[in-house]
Amino acid sequence: MRTSKTLTLLGTLFTFLACASAAEKSPSYSKADLNAAGKLRERALVDESAYQLISSLTTEVGTRPAGSAGDKAAVSWGLREMQRLGFANVRSMQVTVPHWVRGEAELAVVSPWPQSMPTLALGGSVGTPAEGIEAEAVMVKDLEALKALPAGAVKDRIVFFSNRMERTRDGSGYGRAVTIRVAGPSAAAALGALGVVIRSIGTSDERIAHTGALRYSADAPRIPALAVSNPDADVLVRQFESGKSVRVRIRSSSRDLAPATSANVIGEIPGTDRGSEIVILGAHLDSWDPGVGAIDDGAGVAIMMTVAKLINEVGQKPRRTIRVVLFANEEFGTSGSTAYVDLLRGEADRHVLGFEADFGAGPVWRLSSRVNPAQLPAVDQIFRALGPLKLVRGDNEARGGADLDGLGKLGMPILEPGLDGTSYFDVHHTVNDTLAKVDPASLRQAVAAFATAVWLGAQYPGNWERVEGPNPPRR
Amino acid sequence: MRTSKTLTLLGTLFTFLACASAAEKSPSYSKADLNAAGKLRERALVDESAYQLISSLTTEVGTRPAGSAGDKAAVSWGLREMQRLGFANVRSMQVTVPHWVRGEAELAVVSPWPQSMPTLALGGSVGTPAEGIEAEAVMVKDLEALKALPAGAVKDRIVFFSNRMERTRDGSGYGRAVTIRVAGPSAAAALGALGVVIRSIGTSDERIAHTGALRYSADAPRIPALAVSNPDADVLVRQFESGKSVRVRIRSSSRDLAPATSANVIGEIPGTDRGSEIVILGAHLDSWDPGVGAIDDGAGVAIMMTVAKLINEVGQKPRRTIRVVLFANEEFGTSGSTAYVDLLRGEADRHVLGFEADFGAGPVWRLSSRVNPAQLPAVDQIFRALGPLKLVRGDNEARGGADLDGLGKLGMPILEPGLDGTSYFDVHHTVNDTLAKVDPASLRQAVAAFATAVWLGAQYPGNWERVEGPNPPRR
Repeated sequence: MRTSKTLTLLGTLFTFLACASAAEKSPSYSKADLNAAGKLRERALVDESAYQLISSLTTEVGTRPAGSAGDKAAVSWGLREMQRLGFANVRSMQVTVPHWVRGEAELAVVSPWPQSMPTLALGGSVGTPAEGIEAEAVMVKDLEALKALPAGAVKDRIVFFSNRMERTRDGSGYGRAVTIRVAGPSAAAALGALGVVIRSIGTSDERIAHTGALRYSADAPRIPALAVSNPDADVLVRQFESGKSVRVRIRSSSRDLAPATSANVIGEIPGTDRGSEIVILGAHLDSWDPGVGAIDDGAGVAIMMTVAKLINEVGQKPRRTIRVVLFANEEFGTSGSTAYVDLLRGEADRHVLGFEADFGAGPVWRLSSRVNPAQLPAVDQIFRALGPLKLVRGDNEARGGADLDGLGKLGMPILEPGLDGTSYFDVHHTVNDTLAKVDPASLRQAVAAFATAVWLGAQYPGNWERVEGPNPPRR
Repeated sequence: MRTSKTLTLLGTLFTFLACASAAEKSPSYSKADLNAAGKLRERALVDESAYQLISSLTTEVGTRPAGSAGDKAAVSWGLREMQRLGFANVRSMQVTVPHWVRGEAELAVVSPWPQSMPTLALGGSVGTPAEGIEAEAVMVKDLEALKALPAGAVKDRIVFFSNRMERTRDGSGYGRAVTIRVAGPSAAAALGALGVVIRSIGTSDERIAHTGALRYSADAPRIPALAVSNPDADVLVRQFESGKSVRVRIRSSSRDLAPATSANVIGEIPGTDRGSEIVILGAHLDSWDPGVGAIDDGAGVAIMMTVAKLINEVGQKPRRTIRVVLFANEEFGTSGSTAYVDLLRGEADRHVLGFEADFGAGPVWRLSSRVNPAQLPAVDQIFRALGPLKLVRGDNEARGGADLDGLGKLGMPILEPGLDGTSYFDVHHTVNDTLAKVDPASLRQAVAAFATAVWLGAQYPGNWERVEGPNPPRR
């Protein structure tokens, strides 16, 4: 006990000294910058631009999966809106994207009790033969349960994964459950299964299936994979629990078309004395096909464009350049952000700080970061400037969204105003992703949080030093 | 003022005397009957049978629109479950039902901004030619606005009705809005329209369309009619509000098949000294096709079967016979209840009191009635017995659901434990009508309210005298 206590005391002392030393190295914000931050925050809380942008995008474009006509329309919309908002250097950056089309999908229980269930093919999944596939079904909870089955148990069967994802604020419930969607089809195929049906990776009780991308592994046959809603998954579970044999028929006409052309859309608020340094604000312009992408990621697009617009109007130019990038095709392999990093590799170090909004329409509840420890005192100052928005102080293990992964790997620091994901997975990747699911007040609060943090990120009087090591694990 | 006051005083005195006189004529319940009512109520609050019945019906039968395979399966299910619960005289009564099938439907905005929208054909609507119908659309709020248009304004156009129904507890918002669905297509056709699109007659913000029957009038062409969800109706409104011309394309393969055979399912708890008098408990076994009919009307079926089961177990036989009737095809023209009245016309007077549950899964919030004024004191006693369930005392203008209309016209009194419809129209007539929308505690409360009222209805020591005049207006 004594040794342990001594060590703890020594540890505390060390942390104190390290922080004190970091604080010495991290210069404080000027009063002018903090005042401007306060003005921005208050202005954002009454500005309706973000809601209007989502309304415009969902009315005039609607659904916009990679490669679709909507995808092209979204690029035109982004360029037009950035110009209208007065951004500088508005341009597009051409990106090649995969072009998968869902076609139609059907799922029917054949026995013991026939029922048809609305279903969606998983993104990237292959279709069935035109007549479909009918087979006995085997229910397993998850990948571990699948692997624990006796040899041959799923051969020539259709595997039903019954696991239900957990509702969480930070999205960790999704992280834990989504492996079934991503890896389940190939895991089942490797054991001889003919097809896969999963309970939607979503929290909603609506009778709406949830899509999202799977990843086929090279060493297993590609088999069709469909999702059913939570209420229908419950019916399936009850049919299995009757002890009777359950047969299902699935049909899907999903297929890949030739790759298509899309684009990242870029616009800037040019910086002044540190204008060669870029604070990047990322969101993605594509959506999944069933919904119109109001929350995923119309909200992120609207938040970032509104933040830049508000900073452009604050009357004081930012020191660093604020660059908004609306990435092409996040959903189906992050083609846009991958191309962005590849094409700008020589300039990666100019990206001194990154923000991403790809987790719904707010509110923001936490401020996390992944900065060089020497800049943690700056994050503390930013957190204090966010005070009236009542955030929680998060850790320094933030990763941003998927579109910051490439720049994160190259050592770019990240500030993460954490969007509240409690209800996000009720609508994400479903037909239900519409403007009706956006709460205007929460959205304004999110814009206020991002605007404050972005502004202070751009005004930081010191250097945003690079971070080291691999990206932290996804929450 | 004085004259008016005197009249009011006289009126009050008159009401008092009338009530006192009615109370004299209306005998009081015995202590034994009231004790049994209390026991029933408490027992119902912990009994899970109703939820289990809905679970069984939605798992083993699922959707069951008139004429479908599910409709037949539901009749078998009803007979089996009534026998299992120990009802007497379990039987079916054959009914001919219409057999409309929805096929597939599509709706797309062609210009100014192309979008596809999930849609449902209205029940009974005709299909389009295989290639669909494309035309300029005209937006009107409701039937009054349609009629106010200049001559020729909708000729060769598609009419979009934009009115949004109001959320209410008693369903009156539906009553006010549903005319658009029922009469809108023929009203538009009479003015030369080619097709109709309505905003769903529902309160949900989910991107789910709501179906329900239309009624074509004989003097207008039958034109196709589709419904879109509230979020999509909002997109249409915003496209119209841009001032640009809106063109839409609709396609539907709905059609009528030959009439089919279904059945009312009947079971009884036989009465004792007044056993020739029938207290009828009605609900309907059919559902709309998109959902599995958990709340419309699996809940009503389950409430009524559970009430009879609980009364059968109370240890004291009811004086009057309690007859549960699960009606065929309420949704598409009340074929079952119409046939019931036609076939039993000679016995109509034996139906001395009616209950219907066709408004969701509870809770019950109000007790209304339509009884002969002489029996109002009995209703007051029943209301007092419901005390712990915290109901509101309603008026004497109750009508029950659609399946009591025929018996109501013949003078049968009605007691109406009013189900709370605040959320009912979020799921009613949609794919979302599933077990996930049933709250077990609210359902138990509803069973308790119905069981108490039905029991005391059956035990009433006086006569339930006939009521006079036409059915009161639907709320």
